[in-house]
Amino acid sequence: MDHYQGDHHHQQHDLHEQHRHHHHGNESDAEALTSPHDSTSSPRDKHGLHTPLLQRKNTLLPEASYSVEKHQAMVGANVCPIESLDYELIENELFRQDWRSRTKHEILQYVFLKWTFVFLLGVMTALIGFGINMAVENIAGAKFLAVTKFMSTRGFVASFLLYAGSNAVLILLGSMLCVYVSPAAAGSGIPEVKAYLNGVDAPNIFSPQTLLVKVLGCICTVSGGLIVGKEGPLVHVGSCLASILGQGGSKKYHLTWKWLRHFKNDRDRRDLVTCGSAAGVAAAFRAPVGGVLFALEEVTSWWRGPLLWRAFFTTAVVLVVLRTGMAWCKGGACGLFGEGGLIIFDVEGVKSEYGLLELFPVIVLGIIGGVLGSLFNSLNSKIVVFFGGVLNKRWPSAKVVQAVLIALLTATISFVVPWFAECRPCPEHKVGVLPIGAECPTHGRAANFKGFHCPPGTYNDLANLFFNTNDDATRNLFSIGTGGEFRKSSLLIYLACSYFLAVITYGIAVPSGLFVPAILCGATYGRLVGMLMGPIAGEDSLDEGVYALLGAASFLGGSMRMTVSLCIILLELTNNLRMLPLIMFVLLVSKTVGDSFNDAVFDIHVFLKGFPFLDAHPEPFMRHLTAKEAISGPPITFKTVEKVGTVVDVLKTTRHNAFPVLEENGAYLCGLVLRSHIMVLLEKREFLPRLDDSYDAEGIRLSSADFAKPGSGKNLKSIGDLHFSAEVQEMFLDLRFVTNTSPYTVVETMSLAKAFTLFRQLGLRHLCVIPRKPRPNEGSPIVGLLTRHDFMPGYLHEMHPHLRS
Amino acid sequence: MDHYQGDHHHQQHDLHEQHRHHHHGNESDAEALTSPHDSTSSPRDKHGLHTPLLQRKNTLLPEASYSVEKHQAMVGANVCPIESLDYELIENELFRQDWRSRTKHEILQYVFLKWTFVFLLGVMTALIGFGINMAVENIAGAKFLAVTKFMSTRGFVASFLLYAGSNAVLILLGSMLCVYVSPAAAGSGIPEVKAYLNGVDAPNIFSPQTLLVKVLGCICTVSGGLIVGKEGPLVHVGSCLASILGQGGSKKYHLTWKWLRHFKNDRDRRDLVTCGSAAGVAAAFRAPVGGVLFALEEVTSWWRGPLLWRAFFTTAVVLVVLRTGMAWCKGGACGLFGEGGLIIFDVEGVKSEYGLLELFPVIVLGIIGGVLGSLFNSLNSKIVVFFGGVLNKRWPSAKVVQAVLIALLTATISFVVPWFAECRPCPEHKVGVLPIGAECPTHGRAANFKGFHCPPGTYNDLANLFFNTNDDATRNLFSIGTGGEFRKSSLLIYLACSYFLAVITYGIAVPSGLFVPAILCGATYGRLVGMLMGPIAGEDSLDEGVYALLGAASFLGGSMRMTVSLCIILLELTNNLRMLPLIMFVLLVSKTVGDSFNDAVFDIHVFLKGFPFLDAHPEPFMRHLTAKEAISGPPITFKTVEKVGTVVDVLKTTRHNAFPVLEENGAYLCGLVLRSHIMVLLEKREFLPRLDDSYDAEGIRLSSADFAKPGSGKNLKSIGDLHFSAEVQEMFLDLRFVTNTSPYTVVETMSLAKAFTLFRQLGLRHLCVIPRKPRPNEGSPIVGLLTRHDFMPGYLHEMHPHLRS
Repeated sequence: MDHYQGDHHHQQHDLHEQHRHHHHGNESDAEALTSPHDSTSSPRDKHGLHTPLLQRKNTLLPEASYSVEKHQAMVGANVCPIESLDYELIENELFRQDWRSRTKHEILQYVFLKWTFVFLLGVMTALIGFGINMAVENIAGAKFLAVTKFMSTRGFVASFLLYAGSNAVLILLGSMLCVYVSPAAAGSGIPEVKAYLNGVDAPNIFSPQTLLVKVLGCICTVSGGLIVGKEGPLVHVGSCLASILGQGGSKKYHLTWKWLRHFKNDRDRRDLVTCGSAAGVAAAFRAPVGGVLFALEEVTSWWRGPLLWRAFFTTAVVLVVLRTGMAWCKGGACGLFGEGGLIIFDVEGVKSEYGLLELFPVIVLGIIGGVLGSLFNSLNSKIVVFFGGVLNKRWPSAKVVQAVLIALLTATISFVVPWFAECRPCPEHKVGVLPIGAECPTHGRAANFKGFHCPPGTYNDLANLFFNTNDDATRNLFSIGTGGEFRKSSLLIYLACSYFLAVITYGIAVPSGLFVPAILCGATYGRLVGMLMGPIAGEDSLDEGVYALLGAASFLGGSMRMTVSLCIILLELTNNLRMLPLIMFVLLVSKTVGDSFNDAVFDIHVFLKGFPFLDAHPEPFMRHLTAKEAISGPPITFKTVEKVGTVVDVLKTTRHNAFPVLEENGAYLCGLVLRSHIMVLLEKREFLPRLDDSYDAEGIRLSSADFAKPGSGKNLKSIGDLHFSAEVQEMFLDLRFVTNTSPYTVVETMSLAKAFTLFRQLGLRHLCVIPRKPRPNEGSPIVGLLTRHDFMPGYLHEMHPHLRS
Repeated sequence: MDHYQGDHHHQQHDLHEQHRHHHHGNESDAEALTSPHDSTSSPRDKHGLHTPLLQRKNTLLPEASYSVEKHQAMVGANVCPIESLDYELIENELFRQDWRSRTKHEILQYVFLKWTFVFLLGVMTALIGFGINMAVENIAGAKFLAVTKFMSTRGFVASFLLYAGSNAVLILLGSMLCVYVSPAAAGSGIPEVKAYLNGVDAPNIFSPQTLLVKVLGCICTVSGGLIVGKEGPLVHVGSCLASILGQGGSKKYHLTWKWLRHFKNDRDRRDLVTCGSAAGVAAAFRAPVGGVLFALEEVTSWWRGPLLWRAFFTTAVVLVVLRTGMAWCKGGACGLFGEGGLIIFDVEGVKSEYGLLELFPVIVLGIIGGVLGSLFNSLNSKIVVFFGGVLNKRWPSAKVVQAVLIALLTATISFVVPWFAECRPCPEHKVGVLPIGAECPTHGRAANFKGFHCPPGTYNDLANLFFNTNDDATRNLFSIGTGGEFRKSSLLIYLACSYFLAVITYGIAVPSGLFVPAILCGATYGRLVGMLMGPIAGEDSLDEGVYALLGAASFLGGSMRMTVSLCIILLELTNNLRMLPLIMFVLLVSKTVGDSFNDAVFDIHVFLKGFPFLDAHPEPFMRHLTAKEAISGPPITFKTVEKVGTVVDVLKTTRHNAFPVLEENGAYLCGLVLRSHIMVLLEKREFLPRLDDSYDAEGIRLSSADFAKPGSGKNLKSIGDLHFSAEVQEMFLDLRFVTNTSPYTVVETMSLAKAFTLFRQLGLRHLCVIPRKPRPNEGSPIVGLLTRHDFMPGYLHEMHPHLRS
């Protein structure tokens, strides 16, 4: 095995270089990051085929197409090593004993804990969601009040400076937290959650500091006036909470409870994180059913029946906590939060009769949404790649500067553009006789008229959109019975500006959701189409607010490509079930149109970040490859009883995570042993003095709890930290005790597509490939191991260039 | 292999006896049924262990616990042989060539067809659903008009005789159709759909005559006044349509289109049937999203992302067709169908503020629902088992008599009980001054006051419930603002009667849904609880109609144990999103309570019918068994090139569906060959004159189309129908050409739980078990085959009695 050593050391060196370079604000994790831990694939460099691939490791994102093949990914602004999760049932001596000894009481405790966890998860997610909303409303409200006061007393320049300055400070805060404390908190977080639930684990994506930065950063960016939402971040927050709960708190911050540390495998954690993402959506939109469906449709890769039921319980808890909080706020205890709170755009009581004539504008909206949505995806990804390539080569602070510049640009646009808008008289028919000198009255939470610089009795329709929180702007667009509130030109200007800002904003180093930008753009052109349709449809026309809703649906469908979950979220948001058929159709059309151009936005970002994501189905070209053709070399194997020195050497020189164990001088396959399990044996110093010794069940001091997998992003102790005397090196390890004796296997002639199906459906990390004809005493009983990376289309194309056609 | 022959012949003889006995009205399928076709398991009888099992084959259902182990199930009133479906990718020479030659045009055509199919499916399901509703409303409406007229002119006896007589005739018709034409159409059909989507195929469950009987029978039973619904049957109808579409029409009725015959495997058909079940629910409740979720939560066993999107499209089509139909009916073109049409219980505009106080009655309702629902499940299953045991021993006409007797009982109760009720004056506050001699006015579709035998100006509150269609009774219970319409005693009487009738009705030989009975019972006690809560909560109390809705939710949850889908169906039904949190909670409580008593009602019926249903998770005891321990004997194997005579002999003497193929004198496993594929080779007479010949790609006259799997319930040609001359018997078959060279395999020491996971997740029919240590020239390279039956808990417990503890 010596011939690998050189290459691997060189490779590790590169990795370390890079980490040191990018992980400034992240010292606390330095240890974890510099340890060599994930290389589930076979040593490809031996063949020379992949050397170009490996040499490109230092470049980052200018050419996105190769990033999926490496064992590292962009998380936030940094490159991190990634690991694969493992959902396989490990069957070895130890766990077998564990099952047999599990009592009824322990099973009951386990069930009870599962439900306690989701209950806690619901409560905590709801509280955080509520807190974010309250903080945003208060900070942004105070900001707008102050600026409005300045405008009447000190004039344009002073008020602009106050507005732009306060926004810039807020964003500076948010992006500094994000860049220096936890880069994994940047963006919406949905790609990270999606990748995790697909079986990819990157360090820090669910760590406590990510959670903290996500919450604080989200408050800063949303109240700082950027065109971003708090929905995606809340999904990430819910998942973080779930992950932290699932691993029993955080060791680093000494917040651990022993009774919570009960989820010892990736399957249970996966379920909990799924519930967490559902809770996040539920808290963001107050949409319990929508949350469950979002988790099901968008973020999970595996779904189990009982999970539906547990996720539903979680979101129900979220709903109750939110309702309680809002009831408490009604008394005015929450400052500027007011009574409405949370985004709920009530379009109840609207005319709901519509005929076949309305199908025409619905189709038009769907097509616009599909085109603009997919265009958004492609423009945004190009910009992210461009800035990723430019800025990551410089110092990370460039990311902060970029964020602040975008904040200033947003503030300028949203302040200067309405300044040049014409003032319009308050709508008489709504307000009756207007007391002289008064502002236009707001009716309820909807249609919040902004005077801006206009004289009393008039309002500025552009300021209604620009000079407002995103939630209030959306509410204005959705408002019912306010036909004619906006001019067509105003809507067009706002559409262009918000689209432009949304494109450049998503992807910068702040927590930023994508739902609100999509809803804003969509609602704007939706209302525009409604205004154009008004004269055509005449009396029977649908309300402009309804068109705005349909427009929002179309943009969301065109960009995110969800169907059922978006439909339900919008229904729960607007509280009007009669809209269902129209929303369904607009989503069907916009998704179809969008799908013909490019991928869904979150899928694009999963790819850009370099997560090795396994799709639900194999690519068609995989049918032309056999399993053997995807393997790049023979595996490194162990004997059932192996010398300590040999094991340590192998662990030091390779980064493989699993090793086939052969019995009887390599005659047949005994099973698969995980690096992490060998490490436990080494750490606990379970050595045998002689070759013919063996652990017996009583003799060993280990229990299955010692082999419990640490939580997400927690890395194993490095082999480099363990030192063994020469005497110990001559002793033996009995690997049979920890060998998974029944790994899933496929025959070498199986098509890669079929092997993929097995690998993906069962959520494996390693798949053993066995020879078709066993040749005892002739060849190895194992051809190789397939891992996640061996199924990546990019890697396969590079290995078999003739398949590209 | 000769030693199996005797046992198998005997066994087949028994089977034929039984079929002849039970399949009177079903001659057309006699051929299919008498052919020996499914025995995927190893020949267990050899061991003597299972002889008691096989000898019990003639008894039917008195002891339900063993029925799962046999290769037959109760479909409708009859016992039918069942098959397993296969979702494995078959990889042999032939299909490999097929993939490689598939053009872009063919792929496009395939995608286009998939969408055309679901479009057609949506349209047809909606039309049938609409037709059923229209027919029921017209028939039942005419019946009630005539009886009411008789009541005023001819008195009690004459009108009762008319009422009971017309009901009895309708039920007689429905049950005769069901018993003599298509027994598979009995019941709700949801267990059958569920079993099919789990991979179990029983003949006739999706045949054209089943479709026809289901539609006509459903019209008869619902308009015949039984306490049954049309929702379950509509799910079955949608699935039937899907299955018939998926296999390209029906050959028997000469309704085939060549361009439709494009779905050649079970996977595509499974997807289509899933969409069909969603369409059925959507058509029944006008609940498009609820339909998709119902399919997802209740009926499917495998779910794929793209399916969500296609099912959603299907239900959207259903919705549009229904809306168009209803718009067309508004002009009065549909007779008594009226404007409302379809069950929609509008509780819009109801007071939606509720505090924590309302959580108390919600929990109470949930507990009542859980208790009554699970009690319903257990009483109903006991009655079904009892009558199944008694009636199936007699002539099938006993089933018709049973149905008519229950119809007469229902008619008697619903006519006689209101006769003794006190007349109540019309609610003054609703109607103002009442013209003398007028009936109580109905307000809208809701609160349909029935005069019955009462004098003008008064109404009979029991007749409002009893002497009405089930839909109108439900509407009365759900009606808003009609507090005090019912007396508490009336509700109690109705609850007792409808619960009793529902328990004895579900399971008789007519198409009968379970949603309506559950909603009726639940709404009744819900309203009762609401009346009791009224004085306690005072002014702030929720409307009695809302309590009725919550009661219905609780009974549904307590009996069917669904959560998200029921929640959405009820929301779409009642058109009030504000009810969401309350409905969620009531469902959570009632499901929890119900789950602590017994299984969901459809799961119980899947079990009672003897479908070998695979749960999502292995039973805990399976961890203590190895794969080898579930196998009962060595498999019958073939060589790669085998004499025709040998092959024919084996096929004649066993009913196995797959045979391992060994190469090089049994040294290693070449793959698995399906009986159906061998049959094609035999039928097409692809014989080799000499042992050392071989088909080459050009020489063979077969294409992959010849191997396409026939549709559901279509059985393969029997080996007994083929005759070969002595000369041919000496020729050879090259099985390599049709052998699946990469079957999924597991090692013999793998725990059965882990093998189950593989088997279930990938939807396999056969799973090869290979020895841990390959012993060339010593033993077989294959230990055995695991099939669906080998994973059935009942079978395993019988084999390993010590596991029962």
